[in-house]
Amino acid sequence: MIKVGILGATGYAGNELVRLVHNHRKLEISFLDSRSYVSEEYSRVYPNFKNIIDEKCISVNLEEDLDNIDLLFTALPHGLSQIPVKEILERGKKVVDLSADFRLKDINTYQEWYDTKHEAGDLIERAVYGLSEIYKEEISRADLVANPGCYPTSVILPLYPLLKEKAITSDLIIVDSKSGVSGAGRSARDGNLYSQCNENFRAYGIGSHRHTPEIEQELSLAGERQIRVQFTPHLAPMTRGILSTIYIRNNKDVKAQDIRQILENYYKNQKFVRVLEEGNYPQTKAVYSSNYCDIGFRVDPRTDTIIVVSAIDNLVKGAAGQAIQNMNLMFGFDYDEGLKQPAIWP
Amino acid sequence: MIKVGILGATGYAGNELVRLVHNHRKLEISFLDSRSYVSEEYSRVYPNFKNIIDEKCISVNLEEDLDNIDLLFTALPHGLSQIPVKEILERGKKVVDLSADFRLKDINTYQEWYDTKHEAGDLIERAVYGLSEIYKEEISRADLVANPGCYPTSVILPLYPLLKEKAITSDLIIVDSKSGVSGAGRSARDGNLYSQCNENFRAYGIGSHRHTPEIEQELSLAGERQIRVQFTPHLAPMTRGILSTIYIRNNKDVKAQDIRQILENYYKNQKFVRVLEEGNYPQTKAVYSSNYCDIGFRVDPRTDTIIVVSAIDNLVKGAAGQAIQNMNLMFGFDYDEGLKQPAIWP
Amino acid sequence: MIKVGILGATGYAGNELVRLVHNHRKLEISFLDSRSYVSEEYSRVYPNFKNIIDEKCISVNLEEDLDNIDLLFTALPHGLSQIPVKEILERGKKVVDLSADFRLKDINTYQEWYDTKHEAGDLIERAVYGLSEIYKEEISRADLVANPGCYPTSVILPLYPLLKEKAITSDLIIVDSKSGVSGAGRSARDGNLYSQCNENFRAYGIGSHRHTPEIEQELSLAGERQIRVQFTPHLAPMTRGILSTIYIRNNKDVKAQDIRQILENYYKNQKFVRVLEEGNYPQTKAVYSSNYCDIGFRVDPRTDTIIVVSAIDNLVKGAAGQAIQNMNLMFGFDYDEGLKQPAIWP
Amino acid sequence: MIKVGILGATGYAGNELVRLVHNHRKLEISFLDSRSYVSEEYSRVYPNFKNIIDEKCISVNLEEDLDNIDLLFTALPHGLSQIPVKEILERGKKVVDLSADFRLKDINTYQEWYDTKHEAGDLIERAVYGLSEIYKEEISRADLVANPGCYPTSVILPLYPLLKEKAITSDLIIVDSKSGVSGAGRSARDGNLYSQCNENFRAYGIGSHRHTPEIEQELSLAGERQIRVQFTPHLAPMTRGILSTIYIRNNKDVKAQDIRQILENYYKNQKFVRVLEEGNYPQTKAVYSSNYCDIGFRVDPRTDTIIVVSAIDNLVKGAAGQAIQNMNLMFGFDYDEGLKQPAIWP
Repeated sequence: MIKVGILGATGYAGNELVRLVHNHRKLEISFLDSRSYVSEEYSRVYPNFKNIIDEKCISVNLEEDLDNIDLLFTALPHGLSQIPVKEILERGKKVVDLSADFRLKDINTYQEWYDTKHEAGDLIERAVYGLSEIYKEEISRADLVANPGCYPTSVILPLYPLLKEKAITSDLIIVDSKSGVSGAGRSARDGNLYSQCNENFRAYGIGSHRHTPEIEQELSLAGERQIRVQFTPHLAPMTRGILSTIYIRNNKDVKAQDIRQILENYYKNQKFVRVLEEGNYPQTKAVYSSNYCDIGFRVDPRTDTIIVVSAIDNLVKGAAGQAIQNMNLMFGFDYDEGLKQPAIWP
Repeated sequence: MIKVGILGATGYAGNELVRLVHNHRKLEISFLDSRSYVSEEYSRVYPNFKNIIDEKCISVNLEEDLDNIDLLFTALPHGLSQIPVKEILERGKKVVDLSADFRLKDINTYQEWYDTKHEAGDLIERAVYGLSEIYKEEISRADLVANPGCYPTSVILPLYPLLKEKAITSDLIIVDSKSGVSGAGRSARDGNLYSQCNENFRAYGIGSHRHTPEIEQELSLAGERQIRVQFTPHLAPMTRGILSTIYIRNNKDVKAQDIRQILENYYKNQKFVRVLEEGNYPQTKAVYSSNYCDIGFRVDPRTDTIIVVSAIDNLVKGAAGQAIQNMNLMFGFDYDEGLKQPAIWP
Repeated sequence: MIKVGILGATGYAGNELVRLVHNHRKLEISFLDSRSYVSEEYSRVYPNFKNIIDEKCISVNLEEDLDNIDLLFTALPHGLSQIPVKEILERGKKVVDLSADFRLKDINTYQEWYDTKHEAGDLIERAVYGLSEIYKEEISRADLVANPGCYPTSVILPLYPLLKEKAITSDLIIVDSKSGVSGAGRSARDGNLYSQCNENFRAYGIGSHRHTPEIEQELSLAGERQIRVQFTPHLAPMTRGILSTIYIRNNKDVKAQDIRQILENYYKNQKFVRVLEEGNYPQTKAVYSSNYCDIGFRVDPRTDTIIVVSAIDNLVKGAAGQAIQNMNLMFGFDYDEGLKQPAIWP
Repeated sequence: MIKVGILGATGYAGNELVRLVHNHRKLEISFLDSRSYVSEEYSRVYPNFKNIIDEKCISVNLEEDLDNIDLLFTALPHGLSQIPVKEILERGKKVVDLSADFRLKDINTYQEWYDTKHEAGDLIERAVYGLSEIYKEEISRADLVANPGCYPTSVILPLYPLLKEKAITSDLIIVDSKSGVSGAGRSARDGNLYSQCNENFRAYGIGSHRHTPEIEQELSLAGERQIRVQFTPHLAPMTRGILSTIYIRNNKDVKAQDIRQILENYYKNQKFVRVLEEGNYPQTKAVYSSNYCDIGFRVDPRTDTIIVVSAIDNLVKGAAGQAIQNMNLMFGFDYDEGLKQPAIWP
């Protein structure tokens, strides 16, 4: 059994980690850290765990608590995991960081978009970007994995193979993403209130969302040239799910069958990415609470445009599920261990 | 008092017409036609009208019932209003047709996209496209107004002035629209069920939705050249509202202040179109149950892209509200008569 | 034109008052007071009012601001309107208080259930309980009206006539109420978050909710004896609406037709109370955004139980709508002025 | 491995069975029967199963298909499983029937409330009522288990021990239940439409719901006397979940600690029933997608009333989960096999 600690266990991504760790046959929880609920029973904060998780939340002591674990999950807001990551690596242990702190390879880009100084810049190079299907080899050898953002996961998975195989040659990609409200976390802010979100749909952060450089970094690596992304996130009146609709100029008359072949070939041994049949488009319910990413697409000859649509559960494949998948790779477990449950419907 | 009849009064657009007619000081209802609920009390079909509307639904008799009204609203599926429109015009009365039958100026385009023969092609030229703010002069002289589709209303209102003033020069416009489920009507289909739609977000009809040629027709008229639209509708888990996010290549370095000036100038005497302050983006709740169309935008220098966002209530400005506004123009009433209520919040 | 000021205009009840005042032909807003949004434009806090309400929020100055108004609406949490009410009455003006501060005739009951000292106990007797249909004479002569709570409105309206006419003789009444989340206000608390409320249904405050003594006071007055109420509120995943299901032991073999006759007779000149046909039960959508209260019932011979069901919009008939109705009575306007809009559907 | 067939696999309960069978280590699916989707791929009807379930739906052939299975799950509307149940029992196989056909011990009660003739009355006595925690011994020896209704499960689990231990002596019990829309199944009816259910809350079938005699049967068995239940179901705007609020006259001054002791003692070895701490009440989200039943209660001294609240997921503990639990008992597996996942939150 592998012992894991979770920093930020009372946020929604942390809570989802707890659920998935509980479903995993080879993991046990060593501690559940929380800033907001120290000393409270975890099952009072998340009553779904009553009689299942008996632990109380602790405020982690970096001197002592890290010695007894094999792996640390950090599910903290950006800026807060740099010190814990340093500490755990110094002890020769592994870490999956769910924050944005080690995703961007260029420290200046990080400091600019996140408007904060990076305190562990020397570790950035050591970090592997944890998009499980793309970097599985690197992840299996890594001790520091930077778990991708939710939006980037939904965008990079469908586009990476297409850029790599030169089916996409345009330098500008338009990404229109829609997210459930759980993506904003469990913070008590006006914009997250039921009565403000229900029966409401809105755009936010147009052209300025912090996931933009993360998407561009990975797409540029895939395409081996500088890719620009016009990224617009939206808030949808639902709890879970991201649907991304992506528009790409079809410069070189790529056919639907080419796209299908590239995607199916690239993901043929990766069960969590599903390429839908022609005429079928993803819907968030089909991946609800699961680790799947569904991909559909259309090549429109009227407009010479390729439209790619993807769906994930933002808390699973977009956060905790992918973190577990990465951990599986890091410890040599089956990559789908603890993640086999299909989506809930309805 | 003007007497109106409503064909298709038990659909959601028809019901919204009934509500707005009731709020209007100069209208009275002559008959409420329905195919599904003939002889039933209207207030049993829509219990919000109990003790308010006492009429029973009838199945209209085109020979007799049209003689006593001044204006006919037709809120029927496409293909079904052509005969009634003919009949009412022959009697010298006016009609606002909420279906798609008289929106497209090119009969072949209609027959191709709607896959049906048009039985009243001679009337197409006589019809005025009823986008109230754009064609107010023509509407005020018309006896046949083709009320715009819900998606087209949300797209054409923000783009028309920008194309007319040559702020947009790109020939391809990407439109990503999100609609509440009421847009699919009150038909008992699997895809409209609560349990299938709730906590679900999905794309449909990519590149093939019938509102595409309607949008292209009007944008091409505005731009005085052929405009192509890549249109993707989505179904959002909410009852009312459309939010459209529109992406346009900024070919000639248009500035945000140019766009603001064009929009504010074009709509300066039109209260139902509101241009939001910089950094504010539309949300459907701000127009819920009202006749407003909110517009926001951003010019992104990183990507040379103009992003325009609009929000309407699909049943009001996207259907019944605009029909009332058109009727007001046709009869010389104040254009906002019966439409003055602000949106409900929350 | 009557000039009104609103204390607490940025809460949901306050906002609904603003909407209804705007729809009212004889009212104009003098000031909009807010504790949280002082000096902000009201339409930034509630963007549905953009271009409609231009005022900024103020922090009321009781010395100066009250002189220019004819009536004050106080939509503040309990405990905060006692001083303003004193001040406005000293100036000979009228006030409708939407808080709980003047509803309970017994100051000790108030102090016990609300766990706070009452600072204006001498005014309690002067206050008229503003259940518009029951106390219309008293309200029309009042200068201080205590607007009822949302739950009590939904319970007292159906039961008052039945107790008065001795159709109900049981001393214990079971009330099971379900409310939308807007009833909890716009405060940024964990329990109000979208992700905590959506797809969730829960009971709270069983046997201890502060509306209990208010309901018991009025039912006891109607029945001319001490009535006890077992009251259980629930939070439903919706924004607006209260549905109350009420169970009463049928001690004296009352028939359905007796109940119908009593209710229809009592409310025959009161349009906002609608008694549904046999076999029809209320639903919150039928009163959404309107001032109506729908009532249905069943007499079950198997169990000798009378079941009464009522539905209101908690923000309209349960708060701001009833406040407007009371104000109409106080100033001699038609009681439905500004409240004529039917419910929105769907 | 046990081979199972599912009749009615494309309804929501059937689909939930498929999900749970897939999560179970000792089961494999032999066939998926459907009336509406014969010959369609199951994963087209439920796209969450894409690449997971490859079977097509069949129309079961009772002559042939039953020979190869060990157990049959019937998830059909009432009246349709009597013949298949006969057939499977004649082959010496086991069956869990999720319909109402074998729940009521009195055939006349069945025929009266369900308004249909029973075609397999001789099997009623052989059937064991499958409330897993109450009848675990009988179920383990049964070959025909009548899986309880969703509402009855939520009511009988909390009340059975209290009646058995004479903590409840009242003969009339008031049950106010609230259900998500999935309880109405996947049939395309007006009342199940998103736009009719969303932002709506309503009562239905007051005093006449078919689950009433089922509840009364079991409570009367527990109490060893005739118990009457006043049962009111409601439809809540959510997909999953039932919350039942139950009111009982406290005739003999039972204390909260008595109730706690009885419940905790009765369920001390049954993990799926959780008795909440004082002051905590159940919420449907805490059991979402899981097999748990949460119970809370309050003894109100003001009114001499005991209020009991329970929450289940209607499709899991209220249908498919309990069916799996029963199957586990019938085959000697651990009773929680395949049911260990905690609820999803949020």
